[in-house]
Amino acid sequence: MDKLFETVAERGHVCVGLDTAADYAPERERRSSPAETVLAYNKAIIDSTIGIAACYKVQIAYYEEMGISGLAAYAATLKYLHEKNALVIADIKRGDIADTASRYAHAHFEGDFEADFVTLTPYLGMDSIEPWLTWADKKGKGAFILMRTSNKGRRDFQEQKLSSGKKLYDAVGDRLSGLAAANPGKYGYGAFGAVVGADPQSPEEREEAAAIRAGRPNLFFLIPGYGAQGGAASDAALLLREGNGGVVNASRSILRAWQNKAAMTGMKPGDADNAFAAFEAGRAAAEMRDEILKAVK
Amino acid sequence: MDKLFETVAERGHVCVGLDTAADYAPERERRSSPAETVLAYNKAIIDSTIGIAACYKVQIAYYEEMGISGLAAYAATLKYLHEKNALVIADIKRGDIADTASRYAHAHFEGDFEADFVTLTPYLGMDSIEPWLTWADKKGKGAFILMRTSNKGRRDFQEQKLSSGKKLYDAVGDRLSGLAAANPGKYGYGAFGAVVGADPQSPEEREEAAAIRAGRPNLFFLIPGYGAQGGAASDAALLLREGNGGVVNASRSILRAWQNKAAMTGMKPGDADNAFAAFEAGRAAAEMRDEILKAVK
Repeated sequence: MDKLFETVAERGHVCVGLDTAADYAPERERRSSPAETVLAYNKAIIDSTIGIAACYKVQIAYYEEMGISGLAAYAATLKYLHEKNALVIADIKRGDIADTASRYAHAHFEGDFEADFVTLTPYLGMDSIEPWLTWADKKGKGAFILMRTSNKGRRDFQEQKLSSGKKLYDAVGDRLSGLAAANPGKYGYGAFGAVVGADPQSPEEREEAAAIRAGRPNLFFLIPGYGAQGGAASDAALLLREGNGGVVNASRSILRAWQNKAAMTGMKPGDADNAFAAFEAGRAAAEMRDEILKAVK
Repeated sequence: MDKLFETVAERGHVCVGLDTAADYAPERERRSSPAETVLAYNKAIIDSTIGIAACYKVQIAYYEEMGISGLAAYAATLKYLHEKNALVIADIKRGDIADTASRYAHAHFEGDFEADFVTLTPYLGMDSIEPWLTWADKKGKGAFILMRTSNKGRRDFQEQKLSSGKKLYDAVGDRLSGLAAANPGKYGYGAFGAVVGADPQSPEEREEAAAIRAGRPNLFFLIPGYGAQGGAASDAALLLREGNGGVVNASRSILRAWQNKAAMTGMKPGDADNAFAAFEAGRAAAEMRDEILKAVK
């Protein structure tokens, strides 16, 4: 997490989400299989954003959907990112207990699917989170645990009020703050942070976001919901702290930037190639970086 | 879910958990890779339990741990089970929203990883569950959503009391009961059931289990925690309804039955083979079936 903090200080807050579907790639760039198309597209996007992104988040569902060949493309994408010295968040939202959690940790912190960070879901309880912690010490790995997400369904359970007066997400936050306090990093953030979503918010919800940030000074945030999901730089900025303390993820607004550009300019989609798509992705990522930097000033 | 109900009526409640690690197989049965060892072992176990098991639950973490080759063994295990007309629960505990949930559903309800049921985690909210529902209509698929699990950590969040007086798991149960009521099957159970754990319980916890069962007549339960995890037939029986309404999972107590047997008889572990292991697994599964049937009488 220290390394992520330093990268944010250097390059800004953008986490490029590689939630890549084959049909995001220009038509003339289709390879022999959807998985090959996705891998080639990812490499082009990575090349054009590597100096802009603080990190990359790879959403494994898009690869699992394609079966074995998709997971080979997932592994190859992670490998390519490691070769470029990029920090990688595996967005896997796994959650299981005891021995099973350890096996998931082996799966995603070493071998074919090795990443620097994972996302985890807390419903099962802290014994589904703690087995991952040994990897923080052993290999410098980290995790982001779902706390308060950006989807509407967060109201169903995460925002339920407990008899203590707290909301469920705050009870999760308490446990995560406790973990972080037990082993703070160089910049005061624990190896395990939280997923806290940004999206268009009522004044009350903006206040709530500010309270979440103020109440959790030792949690580094992974912030989804920007861009295609509706969140703006000012929403994301509420969840940052002293200009750092979080990365803001955008996927479609970067991966599909070329499609908007083509539509705006009247370009025939058939004329686009990966180089064009990558250029527009880089531009979208740089704009996003600058907007957030402006919003936190 | 109708089909699972009928299979339980015919064969009893045993769900054989294929949470298979390579070192569960006898030493002389080691193949050229851990994944090959696991696949060969699974086939032997399946052959010996096919007439006893109501269904099989395959825990994907054990396969993900081995990377691409592990997931190939996972796919091959599912294929073998389909060839035997077995009902298969993919224990994946996935949970993600919107488009991402749909992609996970594609991943696990068709293609390389096609299963009949999946397990899901509800923290994100109902918009992480509902995208899977279209598959119930379209392809007769089902799911089990984590409600109250059998690990100690369930107390951290699932058992938190809400301001309404209910516990969180009960709020989850309410939503699941609602889904089931909207589209009940032939036997009154919806296509989406719940994971409710059995394990050694205090009198209060036994009462709670009975209340969960009585309060959720239209939810079919997947019941982990039996055997190696400490639950007994009488604990599991509390979660069954009119002799049906649930399947009880056991993994290690079946997969590793041969090791206990070898230890008891003084057999050298090196003398064991898959045939011996499979025989003991079949025996353990049959005993478990009979114990549960006795407990529900």
